[in-house]
Amino acid sequence: MRGTVMYAAGDVRIENVPDPTIQEPTDAVIRVTRACICGSDLWPYKTLQPSDGARVMGHEAIGVVEEIGRDVRTVEVGDVVVMPFAFSDGTCIFCEEGLQTECLHGGFFGNADVPGAQSEAVRIPQADGTLYALPVGEDDTLMPSLLTLSDVMGTGHHAAVVAKVGPGKSVAVVGDGAVGLCGVIAAKRLGAEQIIIMGRHQDRIALAREFGATDAVGERGAEAVERVKELTDGYGVDAVLECVGLDPSMETAIDIARPGGAVGRVGVPQHEAIPGAEPSFYKNITIGGGPAPVRAYIDGLLPDILEGRIEPGRVFDRVVDLDGVPDGYRAMNDREAIKVMVRP
Amino acid sequence: MRGTVMYAAGDVRIENVPDPTIQEPTDAVIRVTRACICGSDLWPYKTLQPSDGARVMGHEAIGVVEEIGRDVRTVEVGDVVVMPFAFSDGTCIFCEEGLQTECLHGGFFGNADVPGAQSEAVRIPQADGTLYALPVGEDDTLMPSLLTLSDVMGTGHHAAVVAKVGPGKSVAVVGDGAVGLCGVIAAKRLGAEQIIIMGRHQDRIALAREFGATDAVGERGAEAVERVKELTDGYGVDAVLECVGLDPSMETAIDIARPGGAVGRVGVPQHEAIPGAEPSFYKNITIGGGPAPVRAYIDGLLPDILEGRIEPGRVFDRVVDLDGVPDGYRAMNDREAIKVMVRP
Repeated sequence: MRGTVMYAAGDVRIENVPDPTIQEPTDAVIRVTRACICGSDLWPYKTLQPSDGARVMGHEAIGVVEEIGRDVRTVEVGDVVVMPFAFSDGTCIFCEEGLQTECLHGGFFGNADVPGAQSEAVRIPQADGTLYALPVGEDDTLMPSLLTLSDVMGTGHHAAVVAKVGPGKSVAVVGDGAVGLCGVIAAKRLGAEQIIIMGRHQDRIALAREFGATDAVGERGAEAVERVKELTDGYGVDAVLECVGLDPSMETAIDIARPGGAVGRVGVPQHEAIPGAEPSFYKNITIGGGPAPVRAYIDGLLPDILEGRIEPGRVFDRVVDLDGVPDGYRAMNDREAIKVMVRP
Repeated sequence: MRGTVMYAAGDVRIENVPDPTIQEPTDAVIRVTRACICGSDLWPYKTLQPSDGARVMGHEAIGVVEEIGRDVRTVEVGDVVVMPFAFSDGTCIFCEEGLQTECLHGGFFGNADVPGAQSEAVRIPQADGTLYALPVGEDDTLMPSLLTLSDVMGTGHHAAVVAKVGPGKSVAVVGDGAVGLCGVIAAKRLGAEQIIIMGRHQDRIALAREFGATDAVGERGAEAVERVKELTDGYGVDAVLECVGLDPSMETAIDIARPGGAVGRVGVPQHEAIPGAEPSFYKNITIGGGPAPVRAYIDGLLPDILEGRIEPGRVFDRVVDLDGVPDGYRAMNDREAIKVMVRP
């Protein structure tokens, strides 16, 4: 079959790769009907060394089950399923706690060990715990929004949950990428009163406002901190959703949090240490987050998508076939596209 | 009056200093009946530069109210009162939330601006919000335990609250100083099932066990992490109380936390950045804490002291008069004493 192989920074090719097969009795194979390019795919796109080894990319998809291992019980051939970006057995102590990204028998797609979903098909380890069968056909008009359940909508929601967003709270979202935009949706959905989107791309800001952002701050660094304080009686916000993962963005996140506030970080950290050990201490700020257990969140988010209350699928502003994937990476990296959908 | 003045690292003197007076109508002056030397006093004791300016030290005390400003309503002359290490107005939005250490009109004792309590008397700004009148006489036998309400017991409790200690949880306490030992008491009081004290001083470990510690780990670094994992089915603990504030102790705290766990830090950070940005992210760990709002915790902790259920006063293993304070600093710095009580 054809799949997306990254060899090194900037070097993404569509090639013939081995067909996925059932390797364990708990596996399934799905035919990919929709996949995505993720903001986190841009980190290797910027930095991957040839010596790191080539990888079949992609960790977000919806597909149709083509084959199941003999121990698979919860999905059947023909089911339309969401594939969360991490696989998980659904039964270990961490899965039981709703923390599937810490599953004892889990792992991630699209790396050197587990081939990814920007392909015609993909093997799903731990299919019972991982896949979520959808009550729609494979070409349902809600497909873009449903596809965000595999990562960005659940990830934005995780940031909001960790940052303790709730009714009446003030929230800032650092980063106007797809996750940040979904963070705005999540904050609004959880009842936030004030939602400040921090970013400088006018098209994204406009979408954030449609999703519920009440204010936008285009400044960076100290100026951004000052602007957020002006918007919040001088105190800062209750909750910060850090959706970037860089040192300066985390520093800003800490500086705009109100004393006693919380930062939910979902941007994959590109730093070794979290800046601001002293200011975060003296303000009694809580910093949490990590890879979102999106599998756990589907139950809660799916009805809002099916009933049209949230439309996270609007973050997709480009659709490509497999041949268009390399240019999709380029477009996202150049900030030409917010998020690219792949129809293999 | 006589007070404790620190001029530079290692240079602590008992000298005549100005008598405290009412400067604002919200002030009170208390005669200090008991004060303490704090582990956090050892940071300037190690590092204070003469150019930083001399300071009258001390931020923990119990005393008797001698004089009140004309606006003070909640304490009267003659009351026996606890002085928390931070003053606070008790009415601002942060005080209302129980976060008195973030009070809009608050501050700390024992620094270059506000003289401290290792003295015969001390001025209390914002007396109504700050002082807590005790239902006992000034020489009550419970005085040592009551004195810990001004800092270490409330601080250990804060670490436990932030680390989400609750019934059945596994807890590790990093640091066997007075705060760490009070953290053990707090963890036990909140229902923890397993409490691991991390430290290597046999007398402190023995006391920790009497306070409720179930295990002790004397190793450091990677060996300590391995030992804690052995004690916790390989996963690490639900809650870590970080009571030191150094880079290696925070690194250990993060490494021994179970996925989805929480670190409550109350050790004053001596680092610019929190180490372990990646491991804490990939384990979805929450890191919180800061200066403890001990004023908020007195209501909850006091009955347990008055009724003998907890005995945090046992952390005091030396009592000195004012003349003995310089040697008290030395003894705590040399780890000869756990915590020194001062009777001016």
